[in-house]
Amino acid sequence: MLTEFELIKHCFNWPQNNEHIICAVGDDASIVQVPNGYELVQSIDTQVADVHFPATAPADLIAQRALRCAISDLAAMGANPQAFHLALSLPKDTSQQWLQSFSSGLRSCANEYDISLIGGDTTSSPALVITLQVQGLVQTGKALTRTKAQLDDDVWLSGQIGRSAAALSNILKSPEANIENDTSLAAAYYYPQAQIALGQQLITLAHSAMDISDGLLQDASHIAKASNCCINIESQHIPLNEIAIEQFGQNQALQFALTGGDDYQLLFTAPKSVAKKLNDLGCYRIGKVESLKKQSNKNWVLLDSQPVQNKSMGYQHF
Amino acid sequence: MLTEFELIKHCFNWPQNNEHIICAVGDDASIVQVPNGYELVQSIDTQVADVHFPATAPADLIAQRALRCAISDLAAMGANPQAFHLALSLPKDTSQQWLQSFSSGLRSCANEYDISLIGGDTTSSPALVITLQVQGLVQTGKALTRTKAQLDDDVWLSGQIGRSAAALSNILKSPEANIENDTSLAAAYYYPQAQIALGQQLITLAHSAMDISDGLLQDASHIAKASNCCINIESQHIPLNEIAIEQFGQNQALQFALTGGDDYQLLFTAPKSVAKKLNDLGCYRIGKVESLKKQSNKNWVLLDSQPVQNKSMGYQHF
Repeated sequence: MLTEFELIKHCFNWPQNNEHIICAVGDDASIVQVPNGYELVQSIDTQVADVHFPATAPADLIAQRALRCAISDLAAMGANPQAFHLALSLPKDTSQQWLQSFSSGLRSCANEYDISLIGGDTTSSPALVITLQVQGLVQTGKALTRTKAQLDDDVWLSGQIGRSAAALSNILKSPEANIENDTSLAAAYYYPQAQIALGQQLITLAHSAMDISDGLLQDASHIAKASNCCINIESQHIPLNEIAIEQFGQNQALQFALTGGDDYQLLFTAPKSVAKKLNDLGCYRIGKVESLKKQSNKNWVLLDSQPVQNKSMGYQHF
Repeated sequence: MLTEFELIKHCFNWPQNNEHIICAVGDDASIVQVPNGYELVQSIDTQVADVHFPATAPADLIAQRALRCAISDLAAMGANPQAFHLALSLPKDTSQQWLQSFSSGLRSCANEYDISLIGGDTTSSPALVITLQVQGLVQTGKALTRTKAQLDDDVWLSGQIGRSAAALSNILKSPEANIENDTSLAAAYYYPQAQIALGQQLITLAHSAMDISDGLLQDASHIAKASNCCINIESQHIPLNEIAIEQFGQNQALQFALTGGDDYQLLFTAPKSVAKKLNDLGCYRIGKVESLKKQSNKNWVLLDSQPVQNKSMGYQHF
């Protein structure tokens, strides 16, 4: 096996082309410039083999999915992706072929989102663990957060949800399958589209935003808590995926949408005045921001005006 | 066990006090400002249980060591620590007590270095894996790198090395020992001192710098390769640790110093004109930058003017 240094040189040191990156892979640390009038938005995201993806999935797909999921946090803040760091913990028996495939998937995704790999750390580990720290630029004071949902805002989704959760049962049956040319559900799981362009458009349209990674209900509760309001979701307006409905039926497709994560669509709130613009952008209005009822047991999220059981909200990490 | 969100709220959401941090833990991403005239220096560093530290070591010491090692990269660039992200992958049976101890060690170290926790991700994993992404500020264009060692520079060390490597054999015998009030070798292992103040002073004194994490010889070769020169180390000038000499003898203490990592002292090159200043700062001159002999097998590092076998250079990650 290659030494750590040879490995980095071979697999993770491709040319970068970004005027704001002063020093990338190869020194003790990276150096970036943040232009005057901008702030740096940053997020860190870990995926663990057989927890977040099947360990035997193709390495290039593992890399694609990991980077896309991480970049989605930048979309949720309205940021423009710039750079990322990779911390890769690998079992000792990892093959060079696996690494090259992983590197190839990572590079392909990085090119698509115009984001530069500027640093990393590779370590030996009993389990494959991928941590990506991504960063992007946003104009000073303009970043979208979860804290500013306002009473009577509409609640919106950027696209269909539940597709990735529906895909997972198929993927777990044959994780090794190469889905390069597959337009079915599995592609949604491995190639989630980070909503970068929309996120930047939402800066002038939305009051609050986040990306859905743990399920609609659970993630909606995060906006509600951060903004101290109640989000009432209208189930009939949630855009479900046709293939999920076809394969699993309407009820299960809705359940995937409510509690399944991994689609990385944006959930956001916006004033009624911009509803037409958001419709034109292909977004779906799925509910409304209401005032929080004064109860001892706060209902941050309502589904069709009814309380939702905490346990059926979405993915629990522990 | 607490849910992920409760866990973050309880253990990793302490008040931050830094005017450049616009948004910390709790949203999709953090937001930082980089003041005009400064650049952001960033590094990512992973430590894996039973690879980088004993899994059964006290949790607060594990946290202390992980953060100190990561911050050391900022010292090596001459940066002033500002903020960090934590990606923590935990076995499912991790106790709340362990987490609280980890959090307490992390917070104590963060306070000491005045560095703010601004974001993170906690995941479930078969192995305990800690990834820290640290960042700091440096005046534009002033960061120390590995690439600018110059012919006839002296080679310097910020302090004794080999102490941490000498400690490791004791630590592996009783990893559970609490060494809070221990001034012996073990403290060097768990509480390495990131040379932040010195790093910033070196900006106007040194031509190149890095921190020693994988062993003096191996790390010296990184400066040599990056600067396309040869580093000739004079073994009799390497500052060895008295306790290591006492416990293991002179020869083994030297071996620890040459190939053991984990002391996180700075290795740097500087012109002869600043030798007195560096002596006054408590640094040790240990060698000289020479021109690279034209040979097919390049000797980046010499020890007492003799070539060094690659295999005896230092820690290999794979």
